[in-house]
Amino acid sequence: MSASGPDVIDYQKLLDEIAREVEPLYGQGKVASYIPALARVPARKFGMALTTLDGKTYRTGDATENFSVQSITKVFTLSIAMAYMTGELWRRVGREPSGNPFNSLVQLEYEHGVPRNPFINAGALVIADVIAAHSPDPKGLIRDFVRRTSANPSIDYDLEVARSEAEAGFRNAAMANFMKSHGNIESPVETVLDIYFTQCSLAMNCVDLSRAFLHLANQGRSPITGDEVATPRKTRRINALMLTCGLYDAAGRFAFHVGLPAKSGVGGGIVAVAPRHYSVCVWSPELDTTGNSVLGSHALEMLTNRTGVSIF
Amino acid sequence: MSASGPDVIDYQKLLDEIAREVEPLYGQGKVASYIPALARVPARKFGMALTTLDGKTYRTGDATENFSVQSITKVFTLSIAMAYMTGELWRRVGREPSGNPFNSLVQLEYEHGVPRNPFINAGALVIADVIAAHSPDPKGLIRDFVRRTSANPSIDYDLEVARSEAEAGFRNAAMANFMKSHGNIESPVETVLDIYFTQCSLAMNCVDLSRAFLHLANQGRSPITGDEVATPRKTRRINALMLTCGLYDAAGRFAFHVGLPAKSGVGGGIVAVAPRHYSVCVWSPELDTTGNSVLGSHALEMLTNRTGVSIF
Amino acid sequence: MSASGPDVIDYQKLLDEIAREVEPLYGQGKVASYIPALARVPARKFGMALTTLDGKTYRTGDATENFSVQSITKVFTLSIAMAYMTGELWRRVGREPSGNPFNSLVQLEYEHGVPRNPFINAGALVIADVIAAHSPDPKGLIRDFVRRTSANPSIDYDLEVARSEAEAGFRNAAMANFMKSHGNIESPVETVLDIYFTQCSLAMNCVDLSRAFLHLANQGRSPITGDEVATPRKTRRINALMLTCGLYDAAGRFAFHVGLPAKSGVGGGIVAVAPRHYSVCVWSPELDTTGNSVLGSHALEMLTNRTGVSIF
Amino acid sequence: MSASGPDVIDYQKLLDEIAREVEPLYGQGKVASYIPALARVPARKFGMALTTLDGKTYRTGDATENFSVQSITKVFTLSIAMAYMTGELWRRVGREPSGNPFNSLVQLEYEHGVPRNPFINAGALVIADVIAAHSPDPKGLIRDFVRRTSANPSIDYDLEVARSEAEAGFRNAAMANFMKSHGNIESPVETVLDIYFTQCSLAMNCVDLSRAFLHLANQGRSPITGDEVATPRKTRRINALMLTCGLYDAAGRFAFHVGLPAKSGVGGGIVAVAPRHYSVCVWSPELDTTGNSVLGSHALEMLTNRTGVSIF
Repeated sequence: MSASGPDVIDYQKLLDEIAREVEPLYGQGKVASYIPALARVPARKFGMALTTLDGKTYRTGDATENFSVQSITKVFTLSIAMAYMTGELWRRVGREPSGNPFNSLVQLEYEHGVPRNPFINAGALVIADVIAAHSPDPKGLIRDFVRRTSANPSIDYDLEVARSEAEAGFRNAAMANFMKSHGNIESPVETVLDIYFTQCSLAMNCVDLSRAFLHLANQGRSPITGDEVATPRKTRRINALMLTCGLYDAAGRFAFHVGLPAKSGVGGGIVAVAPRHYSVCVWSPELDTTGNSVLGSHALEMLTNRTGVSIF
Repeated sequence: MSASGPDVIDYQKLLDEIAREVEPLYGQGKVASYIPALARVPARKFGMALTTLDGKTYRTGDATENFSVQSITKVFTLSIAMAYMTGELWRRVGREPSGNPFNSLVQLEYEHGVPRNPFINAGALVIADVIAAHSPDPKGLIRDFVRRTSANPSIDYDLEVARSEAEAGFRNAAMANFMKSHGNIESPVETVLDIYFTQCSLAMNCVDLSRAFLHLANQGRSPITGDEVATPRKTRRINALMLTCGLYDAAGRFAFHVGLPAKSGVGGGIVAVAPRHYSVCVWSPELDTTGNSVLGSHALEMLTNRTGVSIF
Repeated sequence: MSASGPDVIDYQKLLDEIAREVEPLYGQGKVASYIPALARVPARKFGMALTTLDGKTYRTGDATENFSVQSITKVFTLSIAMAYMTGELWRRVGREPSGNPFNSLVQLEYEHGVPRNPFINAGALVIADVIAAHSPDPKGLIRDFVRRTSANPSIDYDLEVARSEAEAGFRNAAMANFMKSHGNIESPVETVLDIYFTQCSLAMNCVDLSRAFLHLANQGRSPITGDEVATPRKTRRINALMLTCGLYDAAGRFAFHVGLPAKSGVGGGIVAVAPRHYSVCVWSPELDTTGNSVLGSHALEMLTNRTGVSIF
Repeated sequence: MSASGPDVIDYQKLLDEIAREVEPLYGQGKVASYIPALARVPARKFGMALTTLDGKTYRTGDATENFSVQSITKVFTLSIAMAYMTGELWRRVGREPSGNPFNSLVQLEYEHGVPRNPFINAGALVIADVIAAHSPDPKGLIRDFVRRTSANPSIDYDLEVARSEAEAGFRNAAMANFMKSHGNIESPVETVLDIYFTQCSLAMNCVDLSRAFLHLANQGRSPITGDEVATPRKTRRINALMLTCGLYDAAGRFAFHVGLPAKSGVGGGIVAVAPRHYSVCVWSPELDTTGNSVLGSHALEMLTNRTGVSIF
């Protein structure tokens, strides 16, 4: 891979270029509106931050503005759960793409309460349940993990968003109850939902997120903090899961067009990892029909095409 | 990636080691038995061949024994169809993992006759139909493509296998008719089925297949023949599709454990690509419940773990 | 039941009244257009014929004009198959409503090639296969059964319709092939499809059909011919199947509003049975979204409401 | 129908005969065990009570022993809801058989939160929600309705059963939350679940139940109390719904073999209605794989065959 990229890439110039070129795409998507706290985010925002293995961060546009990370936290909670459990974890949640929208109950029913992967909502609920079983303070634990990996101790939950999610979260409640009926949720449903709605409310910016994912581009060791956040093998596995399952029902198309492991959230963020090169976060709130950021997807495709850096 | 592998790998020693170590796995799977021609293949076979970018091929076990490539041909026909069509192709076949067994009609019905990806049977039937529309001799064209990319002019179809498939192919006939009812098959159903059953009957060995896939490890240019078989961008896209959809309903698990784009067939073959490193083919007829070779899957996992070469 | 109807009903007056009152409904549905032979039937047709247990037939409107009976033949073929087989028949086809449109492959896949009931297309294909296994001339047998029960020896197939169906019948071919892959079709697929497409092409009028169903209102014995067409027990069972499964995905609504066992066809016919009272056939080609005649459904609801004759 | 039954049936003798003849079937089914309160019911119980239009009740076996009516209450709550609402009710719940097990979420997802009919659990939850919106004391209202129609003022809920259901009711909670996410539940989920679990816990015996359903055999007017419980048209409609949807996924088979509108419960009760003849309740706790009483189903089939009274 290193052979195929140009020797020296001027990342700053590239990000600025991309930021200019995606502007005409404003208006093609829709800001998530299922809760008021997300619906009132301004649509015309675009930020991008890229951190290379030497720890240097390039940024453009609204890269330091906080947004709701939503499903991107599923990568953090999966990392935590994989540290606790190894083989048994994969009896409670699968590792296959879902072939169905991210919140589908159909597959969950046909597969007897075992979610297809940890990045669909049902899978993330099981992961939250795993963390609840192993920690007296799951929400504190998740927050600390994020603060440490992004080297930003001021990151916190947005409790208004969390409350708003809880009030509208009937479909997640349906899934948690359904999995409980199959014995795949141990803690009380309310406990698990509370962790889940809270974790999704984390407020972070592109710079934070590009840093928090950097160890995944570096075989598990963070170049910023020096910590081994995950073993090389677990790192490869998390990347594999992001590639096959990270963008809801558009994972295939994203692998096809962008070719990097990535995770998106309905807040409009997408984080991607180029192993041995960089991690990158892009944010723009307008979503396409698959729930992924319109400008964000295009920006990452441009990045791959112009750097020639792809895992394939 | 290059940084992470050891500087010099003794591939010959590694393949011989793997061949010894997978032997205790004999008996854990079952040889495909849906047609007599496949059912009578001896179960205890194991071959492996790996070709590096310099064109050198390492081999072990039954690497020069011919077997029925079956679904592995779907990569060849996709390559041919992508040369003919660009954008329109993806209106007739998707690029998403299926989340269902490889021969499911359910998803096809819910998605109005558009198969999820070109590697499930329904998708390969659409690809065969595309080739039929662009060539007066589709079967000759496919055979020539394979002969040229593997630099072996003696490769041919096994017409007994093809006939056997046709006689048992009611489910594929069901899918072709169903897609025809949705207007997604242009040629007569019989024509498309004939191409499909014939392409699956190609008889090749591990050495042939590792060579025929080598351009996919080299941005589309074959180090053996010097031909540009595909553009760099199409090469990345074919690899992306193999990674997300190449192993039926076990694509996610395979990406997780092996971490290389790959395509398997019910004849017991699996071909994998390590971009910028090598292509590899392994063959062993006993299949697991997902239709993938038991010894083959393990051999590839060992290969990845010991070389440290993974796309993630 | 007899207690609840008025002692003497003037059926002629009632039919004429109904014919007048349904006229404003013209234009609310659409004539079946999937084959040219059906598409060119004039939309504004309405006929109705009712035959009482004494063999007297009342008629109104276009009651003597022939139309394509289509799925209504499924009752005839079921009657024939039930005469051949008893217990085993119900291992090859279910007796439950489908909860899905009449031509769905989804349920067929989940239930391993066993159709839910004999009135969905897949079930009728199995029934045709049963008849093929028991008779050297299945099409002659079906025609003779219909001629005899309706006491009209001139009834025949419309071979242009049959050919037209065959040319457009990819979905039925998909189902037959799929069931064959599950071992639930014995004869060649082409044989079964030929019987099916031919049986659907029977050309009959309302008078014929009301007579052909009269034995189902009389415990199996035809008041017209004196024949015992079915035993009392089989008669009750055929009526039960019509009530629960006879109107595709609208069986529940029809039972609710009309309350009589009935069978409809996409040619616009509906035949209904009031046990111990009468059989009735109504025809009008415009169909609602569930594939049932708009004017026909309303006419039968009026008939039930005004006579007070319902099985409930 | 009256014509087809023998002029005088000795119901007492018939019930006693049936009670003797079903005895060998003990052991073929399983007592419901999903909650302790049901699991400890003795398996070898059989009771039957039949009430004719003149108000006379015949009984045999354990006909005066209370059992948990469970889903049979869905007929009572539907009757109440149909009195409140007419057209709008059927926008919130369908009238079609489900073609899926009684607690399936799959169909609910494909149909956007609208249950197929009022007798699957999801449909009964919507009905409970309708009652909650129209009454300040829904549980009192339901109990009073049952006491009045069965003329037994001592009937009451078994609150231990209700609590037990609530503790194990994750799947019903899943469905209620799911429908709430689609806007098809108005009251809080907890309120609706409380009504539902409580209504299912009603403790009644065969005599009570045969009397409580008698008006459905008499066009809506109870011969016992003289009340018009429902209009003749609503009565026919409730009977039609019982016939097409009353026995979970075995409604078709039951219509085929028994031929009477009926409703079953997992407590082992089945109530059936022979319009213009009688209502009958049978109870035996061992259930078949579709959740219906083994001895109960057979007893009702014997009753139909020997009396010749069937709606078909």
